[in-house]
Formats: sequence, C-alpha cells, structure tokens
Amino acid sequence: MTAERGLWITFEGGDGSGKTTQSALLSAWLGEQGRTVLHTREPGGSEVGQLIRDIVLHHRGDIAPRAEALLYAADRAHHVATVVRPALDRGDVVIQDRYLDSSVAYQGAGRVLDAGEVRDLSLWATEGALPALTVLLDLDPQIARHRLDADDKPFDRLEAEKAEFHERVRAAFLALAEAEPERFLVLDAAQPAEQLAATVRERVAALL
Amino acid sequence: MTAERGLWITFEGGDGSGKTTQSALLSAWLGEQGRTVLHTREPGGSEVGQLIRDIVLHHRGDIAPRAEALLYAADRAHHVATVVRPALDRGDVVIQDRYLDSSVAYQGAGRVLDAGEVRDLSLWATEGALPALTVLLDLDPQIARHRLDADDKPFDRLEAEKAEFHERVRAAFLALAEAEPERFLVLDAAQPAEQLAATVRERVAALL
Repeated sequence: MTAERGLWITFEGGDGSGKTTQSALLSAWLGEQGRTVLHTREPGGSEVGQLIRDIVLHHRGDIAPRAEALLYAADRAHHVATVVRPALDRGDVVIQDRYLDSSVAYQGAGRVLDAGEVRDLSLWATEGALPALTVLLDLDPQIARHRLDADDKPFDRLEAEKAEFHERVRAAFLALAEAEPERFLVLDAAQPAEQLAATVRERVAALL
Repeated sequence: MTAERGLWITFEGGDGSGKTTQSALLSAWLGEQGRTVLHTREPGGSEVGQLIRDIVLHHRGDIAPRAEALLYAADRAHHVATVVRPALDRGDVVIQDRYLDSSVAYQGAGRVLDAGEVRDLSLWATEGALPALTVLLDLDPQIARHRLDADDKPFDRLEAEKAEFHERVRAAFLALAEAEPERFLVLDAAQPAEQLAATVRERVAALL
C-alpha cells in the first residue's frame, strides 16, 4: 500500500536476523531527515494486539493451527485498521517488524496449512493492504541461532522449534521474495549492521 | 457434522432468549438417558477460547470489525479442533451454546461485514464442521431485553448495543434458518421453558 501521502516499509526474516536493529536504524535516519516515523510490529502492535500476542507466543498448551493463523490475522486486522492506515493517512512513514510474509512463511510453509490460504486470510483481514517495500534479512538459521544464544535470553514457543523448521521458513521467505521482486529487497544479513543499514537507506531514499 | 458415533446440537438466538436454560435442560435429559454429554459454548469453550472471549467481550476500546470476526473464528477453530471433534469421536453428545450462525447473524447482518464472507471464515476455521441440529430460540428483542433487565446483571459490550441492532440480528437468524430448514428447529422462545424443552427432546430423540 503506497498511500497517497505516507510510506509503509516492512522488515522480514527469521528470529535473530537483525530486524529490530535494522528497523531502528532506518527509523532513526528517517527522523533525522525530518520525517515523522511510526515504528511498529506484528504481532502486538496495538493494545488489542498485545493481548493477542500474549496468547499466541506464551500460552503453554498447544493452539490448533487454524486458530493460530486466525489470531495472527486478527492482530493484523486491528493493527492495520487502527495504527498503520491512520499513520499513512497522516503522511507518516511506517516502519514495521514482520507482516503477512511472516505468517505465510511460518504458518503456511512451516506448518500444516496451505500457504495460499494463509495469505488470503491476511489479505481479507487488511482489505488487501501491502507495503511499498519489504526488506528481507536473509540469514542461515545456524548463524541466527548463535546470535540468539549469545543474547542469553529465554526462547519463546516459536523460537524453541527445531532447526529444520527454521530452514523451511528461510526457504519460504526467499520464495516469497522471488514471487514479488518489486516489493522485496533481499539482503545477506550476515553483513555488518552499518553496511546493511546503508543499503536500506539507499533504497528508501529513492521512495521518498 | 454428524460424526460416525457422536451427535452435535447447537442452540442459537439473541441474548435473553433462553439458550442457557434450554441447553442445560436438554443436557440433563440426555444424561438421564445414559448418554455422555459435553455441554459447551462459544466464545470461550476452551482455555485458549476463554482468553479470546475476554478480549472480544470485555476490551474497553473498539475492536476493528474484521479483527473481531477473526477472533471469533480463532476461538471456533480451537474449540472445534480440541473440544468438539474429540468428544464426537468418543461418541458423546455435544450440546453447544452459539456457533457459526451467531457469527453470521451478529457480525455479518448486524455489523459492516459481508455475511457470506463471515460464514466462509468460520467454515475455513473448522474445516467445514456443521452440527446435526441447530435449535433457534426466536424471541422479540424487547421481551429479551425485559428478561435481561430482570436479571439485573451488568451488560457486556454486545448486550449494550442498540435495540435496532438486535432486531437485525433476529431477522438474520430467521433468514439462516429458512436457508437450511433441515438443520434448524425454530421455536417461539416466548413459550414456557418446559414446553420448549419437550419439543426439543422430541426432535433430539429422533436423532439418537
């Protein structure tokens, strides 16, 4: 969605690929350029979304696969309707960690659900909203795992899944990028953070 | 869904139409007949569903219409997969307060969403599961309102909506029943509770 006035950019990639760092660096740079920036995320980018995120990420029991996909879609519907669209209508730049590509990669390719159905669900949730640019931070899951271990933080439910699962997620992200080359910027996330940030800034500058 | 061994019956109707009373009376009678009965409800018929129900019914802020529909569908997906289907597979009778007809009537006809889309969403959530019998307790919303006032209980968000909304919900329920006459048993809920219960028992006995 390239709104008439605002600009919407999403960051995608597995856990530990550097999404938080890169989206923060881009947000800071855009602020220095005098742009009003909304830095947000999914799941959990709204008050209602926080409640949903708590259920999805931290509920101890198993959640049925379709229920999990629907919860992510509910979070997305509320977030886009009440946070993203209003910001774009104001002319802000919206920088977002994870969007529907994460759902398709994790739920569709990684789990038992059909990827096309998961995508359709997200597009129904948001009335077809898509960002102008999606930065995919592509990284070998073993390197990502090493980074996360170094942080010494507790793993949530998704992070605790097996390494093979993360390999399938990576392949799914790359397939999504290949299918929409104009929307995606695919970067080798093993590069130094500042080098990655410079590449992202260059691409974003062309969109401003 | 008439499972090979179990039997699934849902109760529908507006707030105050007597669903809780009638489903409890039917459950008790079936228990007396020696059947194992699971008496459940939506939203909130599972542990995860309770968390979702809390969000939908009691969150103070407004929830985007598509987010609300997706939350109901998520509750439904989890409930059918983890509670209803296992019970039917065991050969139990499942008696349930509210199912997808409530979503279609409240969300589709009562709100801003397309009724067919809301129905499709529920059917995706449950892989097409439908009960063998749906008892619609049809009641003038003004009478229902009077009953609820007499209970002197606090109204939740949906109950607090306007009278006109409840009229549209009632019409939507009746239209659903007309479209699927074999699944629905429509009863005038202004009748005495014991008389209603006898009619329901007669219909259910034929299904056992």
